[in-house]
Amino acid sequence: MKYGFFDDDAREYVITRPDTPYPWINYIGCEGYFGILSATAGGYSYYRDARLRRLTRGRYNNVPYDNGGRYVYVRDNEDGDFWSPSWMPTQSEVEDYSCRHGMGYSTIGSRRNGIRVSNRYFVPLGETLEIWQLTVTNERLVAADLSLFSSVEFCLWDALDDQSNFQRNLSTGQVEVEDEVIYHKTEYRERRNHFAYFACSEALAGYDTAREEFLGPWRGWDKPAAVAEGKARNSVAHGWSPMGSHHVKMTLQPGETRQVIFVLGYHENDKDEKFDPPGSQTLNKKTVKPVIEKYLQAENADAAFAALGQHWDDLLGVYQAETPDIHTDRMVNIWNAYQCMATFNMSRSASSFESGIGRGLGFRDSNQDLLGFVHMVPARARERILDIAATQLTSGGAYHQYQPLTKKGNNDIGGDFNDDPHWLIIGVAAYLKETGDFSILEEPVVFDNKPGTEQPLYVHLQRSMQYALDRIGPHRLPLIGRADWNDCLNLNCFSNTPGESFQTTTSKDGKVAESVFIAGLMVLSARELSDIARETGKAEDAELYGKISTDMDATIREHGWDGDWFIRAFDDFGRPIGSKENEEGKIYIESQGFCTLAGVGVEDGKARKALDLGCQTSGDAPRHCRAAARLYQILYRVWRDLDLSAGLQGKCRHLLPQQSVGGDRRDRSRQWRCGV
Amino acid sequence: MKYGFFDDDAREYVITRPDTPYPWINYIGCEGYFGILSATAGGYSYYRDARLRRLTRGRYNNVPYDNGGRYVYVRDNEDGDFWSPSWMPTQSEVEDYSCRHGMGYSTIGSRRNGIRVSNRYFVPLGETLEIWQLTVTNERLVAADLSLFSSVEFCLWDALDDQSNFQRNLSTGQVEVEDEVIYHKTEYRERRNHFAYFACSEALAGYDTAREEFLGPWRGWDKPAAVAEGKARNSVAHGWSPMGSHHVKMTLQPGETRQVIFVLGYHENDKDEKFDPPGSQTLNKKTVKPVIEKYLQAENADAAFAALGQHWDDLLGVYQAETPDIHTDRMVNIWNAYQCMATFNMSRSASSFESGIGRGLGFRDSNQDLLGFVHMVPARARERILDIAATQLTSGGAYHQYQPLTKKGNNDIGGDFNDDPHWLIIGVAAYLKETGDFSILEEPVVFDNKPGTEQPLYVHLQRSMQYALDRIGPHRLPLIGRADWNDCLNLNCFSNTPGESFQTTTSKDGKVAESVFIAGLMVLSARELSDIARETGKAEDAELYGKISTDMDATIREHGWDGDWFIRAFDDFGRPIGSKENEEGKIYIESQGFCTLAGVGVEDGKARKALDLGCQTSGDAPRHCRAAARLYQILYRVWRDLDLSAGLQGKCRHLLPQQSVGGDRRDRSRQWRCGV
Repeated sequence: MKYGFFDDDAREYVITRPDTPYPWINYIGCEGYFGILSATAGGYSYYRDARLRRLTRGRYNNVPYDNGGRYVYVRDNEDGDFWSPSWMPTQSEVEDYSCRHGMGYSTIGSRRNGIRVSNRYFVPLGETLEIWQLTVTNERLVAADLSLFSSVEFCLWDALDDQSNFQRNLSTGQVEVEDEVIYHKTEYRERRNHFAYFACSEALAGYDTAREEFLGPWRGWDKPAAVAEGKARNSVAHGWSPMGSHHVKMTLQPGETRQVIFVLGYHENDKDEKFDPPGSQTLNKKTVKPVIEKYLQAENADAAFAALGQHWDDLLGVYQAETPDIHTDRMVNIWNAYQCMATFNMSRSASSFESGIGRGLGFRDSNQDLLGFVHMVPARARERILDIAATQLTSGGAYHQYQPLTKKGNNDIGGDFNDDPHWLIIGVAAYLKETGDFSILEEPVVFDNKPGTEQPLYVHLQRSMQYALDRIGPHRLPLIGRADWNDCLNLNCFSNTPGESFQTTTSKDGKVAESVFIAGLMVLSARELSDIARETGKAEDAELYGKISTDMDATIREHGWDGDWFIRAFDDFGRPIGSKENEEGKIYIESQGFCTLAGVGVEDGKARKALDLGCQTSGDAPRHCRAAARLYQILYRVWRDLDLSAGLQGKCRHLLPQQSVGGDRRDRSRQWRCGV
Repeated sequence: MKYGFFDDDAREYVITRPDTPYPWINYIGCEGYFGILSATAGGYSYYRDARLRRLTRGRYNNVPYDNGGRYVYVRDNEDGDFWSPSWMPTQSEVEDYSCRHGMGYSTIGSRRNGIRVSNRYFVPLGETLEIWQLTVTNERLVAADLSLFSSVEFCLWDALDDQSNFQRNLSTGQVEVEDEVIYHKTEYRERRNHFAYFACSEALAGYDTAREEFLGPWRGWDKPAAVAEGKARNSVAHGWSPMGSHHVKMTLQPGETRQVIFVLGYHENDKDEKFDPPGSQTLNKKTVKPVIEKYLQAENADAAFAALGQHWDDLLGVYQAETPDIHTDRMVNIWNAYQCMATFNMSRSASSFESGIGRGLGFRDSNQDLLGFVHMVPARARERILDIAATQLTSGGAYHQYQPLTKKGNNDIGGDFNDDPHWLIIGVAAYLKETGDFSILEEPVVFDNKPGTEQPLYVHLQRSMQYALDRIGPHRLPLIGRADWNDCLNLNCFSNTPGESFQTTTSKDGKVAESVFIAGLMVLSARELSDIARETGKAEDAELYGKISTDMDATIREHGWDGDWFIRAFDDFGRPIGSKENEEGKIYIESQGFCTLAGVGVEDGKARKALDLGCQTSGDAPRHCRAAARLYQILYRVWRDLDLSAGLQGKCRHLLPQQSVGGDRRDRSRQWRCGV
């Protein structure tokens, strides 16, 4: 079954039928305001923190899935027929459906009974709002009398509380409607200085802000009573479930096209100027009104969209490859870079499979993602590095996650994921290689966000390495701690209690279980640190860290090599994992990949042998393993076909993270071409 | 609009149209296995703890609401028409719909195209399972070729994790299907010795255990693909969303009736006998199979249903009133008693407005609910009292909530709700009055669940009172702490941080804000404690506590009386709340009700004056206040009309909690008749 295709010129993925096997989502927003947006207009939006500042409701793991989003309904007022141009939620039959997921925007549209509707969703740069640019065309031979209804359901800010604490939440919802703009202001009176708003460019035939009024009892988003009857209720929510819906009526002549703009946004007021007039309970709208008015003008919306396109041209233009393989070009030039920016912004906190309420940004994740985006946004990478380093513990250890809103380490999760500290070194090395900005190493950075503990960033890197050196196991390989890159390889956890987290419960003191994955990582990070030291005139450090790297390389080849491939780990009983001795799980992809990327066994042929075997053994693995192995095969084939392994010796190394710090700085607009 | 009526003879509430304004639910289960069940078959089930042992999924605050439950689909195999006899989830048009919410069971049924289907849901006494007794009758003049499909969606045990941690949960689901029984065993292999099962009395045409297979992509419970096509997929879930569905085919002759029984249950195996054969990963079904086989037999299911009816006859038969008012009889003889048993079992942890994941059992709630059920289940009341007292702190204070599965105080919520300790005294007093079992006072009970801290229960009561005496404010009224009976009257909380709980954040040291409500409660609890002391030969204690009661009575009349009614509280600034001086909130129902129930102002006319005013001022209050006031008016009218106020002087006191401990023990089967 074919659901779509890549349009490389437009840098879009085009979905041509809406009933994809699972919701296929895009991410909108590049800075502080974000949203996930499925090809059928499902999803939600938030400001900075997917848990604490959720703007709109999406229901996870719902039946049917992907229900709730940024819906528009069209109603033919002549016969009462109504439908969603995005197919969901009405699932009405439509012609010419398409969703174009582009760089920070999606355009979703279709045609029904001669009415063509297309909706372009995006977040303007520098703003905390999203624009829906809706275009309606009458392709009939006669005039059409239409009603349009928009709809979003507001989240009461904290997404976890929102879905669990009904005793409170159903009593607290508050809205205001003024000049046809819907303001959602739950808890604004008491404790918040932020609110949401939903505005429309057209004069309204009516509006709704109370979900149950709009939908009617026992009715879903697929058949709201207000839409079915063609009549908004002008409801004002007091508690229950606040929502926003505009009702716009229009008569379109044959061939006529009209554009309607909706703006959904987040806004903060000064704490001392929350109300207008002061002392009242009425929202002060002085600073938000100009923003709303601006983007309800089509020319401003168009200009913002053009600016977003230019932004992505600039980002992607930093680095473009031209290879003999169209898939590689597509991945390198568009989608890998785009994904890296998405992870930079969201760090996996919100997706179809992360509800956005269980975690903050990862220490490891944020550092490793930096490898993928540092060349596009070096200034933001610098800020990110310093934010992350400020959460590091004095031991050199790391909180596994931190909250984007507070930038503080997450105590609930804690630390002891022993690969984490290495990633700080590797991330900083990537930044230095990209920018040559060695001044970052002198930046004073606190530990654990405690003022007075400032040390230069370089000392943080040293602490990272010291943390690893303090945790070496019986085979002189690194102890794994709670887990390594594979968060689920919890070798020191022997939990018998349902509900206990495998990742944060530690039953053993962890003096035995070792990770070959971390060992490979350490070879790389110690070499990077050595290079950094050498570049900054610290010859003694350079020698020390260089020796750590080569020693660990030797240790892997001695204790981490199983004869034909790299072992994955040793467990708490000292038994190998990912060895031919094991009945199940004889070979793991992670240690093959990372040891090889670190250069372990490249010279003596071990690396190639391990990778060849890795490709052969993936046939009968479970589905998700097969998917990983497939990806691995692709990368491996690309690597081998393009002779990128030569990059290990320094030739075409820009695709690989192990480029040495001491290498030449790249021209930031250069086109790179493989030398085969 | 009329949606139903009371059938007093059957002790049922009969709902005659399914589209009630909101889901109207019943509770099934009396002991360890519970469920909420709406009139359209929505809801979920759990074992003991609504958060930690959730068996099936119900989606809170969904669109449309009340979606997900215990659904049965009927399919006419001749024309493919399918529907739900419970109206939801297909919302197909049906004739003769009715739902009879009875004592621990509901029967939901309807007719469509000459096929009549009725489903009786209940939990047998002594078992951890629910039975669905489905009856199908062909009222056509020709034979009918039908398919039946059952469906439940399994919850992966921890209801909070289940709805938020998809990264893990979507990978962990496990089932087994053996002899046409569906077993849900997620995490059984690793850390659980309990599993769920779903069985059917008939030979199956097929089954499903994977939700996406049963529903098909983008389809909801309203139109499962398996049902629409009349063909189960025989799917076996590996991860994603495990469910249970049986497909039964039958041909019914004109006038023929068939019964199909479904059994959904929870079962525990011995930790050392989890697998059969040992060492395998196959569920040991030795102990569960006899249970399943038993209840799939119609005669056993009927016998269990009869036993449940007898159980409720016995419970309600303990106390029956006959008054001139049918509504009072109905409330006293059936529904209030039934509600009290529901709160005894669930303590408000699970409902349409409590998601069951945010709280355990309340200290206050469990004690006060005891007043309503102690006469029905004195032995269980005794156990509950001792459980609750074991969570008390040595200071006499209380955790506001405790978890039913562990019976330990809930640290997340903490304590300092200053009315809590009084309720232990009042609960014990009610138990003593009902049973005369003074031996409970000598029971050694730990503090804060710590072994070695045992003291007689009587000492716990003394500590409760001491806790109150240690917290007296400027007007000699009790300090309120975090809150009193009104959990939202948080006078020491001045939170400016969104997301902070008003109830557990304390910004002030609490040396000023006082509660007149607690004062009234203290008059009552001190009098009860005095009576208890007197009955057990502790004359000195009796005098002491008696004086505390009369002193507090006098204090209320001096500082808690506003001229025409009782003040509600004094805030942190020492200003009255619920006073004629206030611009808003001049009079509160809580202090009028509780001071009067405690007898404050009964002799000097203050009580009657306050109640009269309370009835007059409720006209223009917000909706929920009006509802409370309405209830209050009813109680007040009943009270006045029946001259129950005479009960305050000792005549007809069984409806009122202030019956003195020293009074006569009641004959447990006596019919009470009001003396007017």
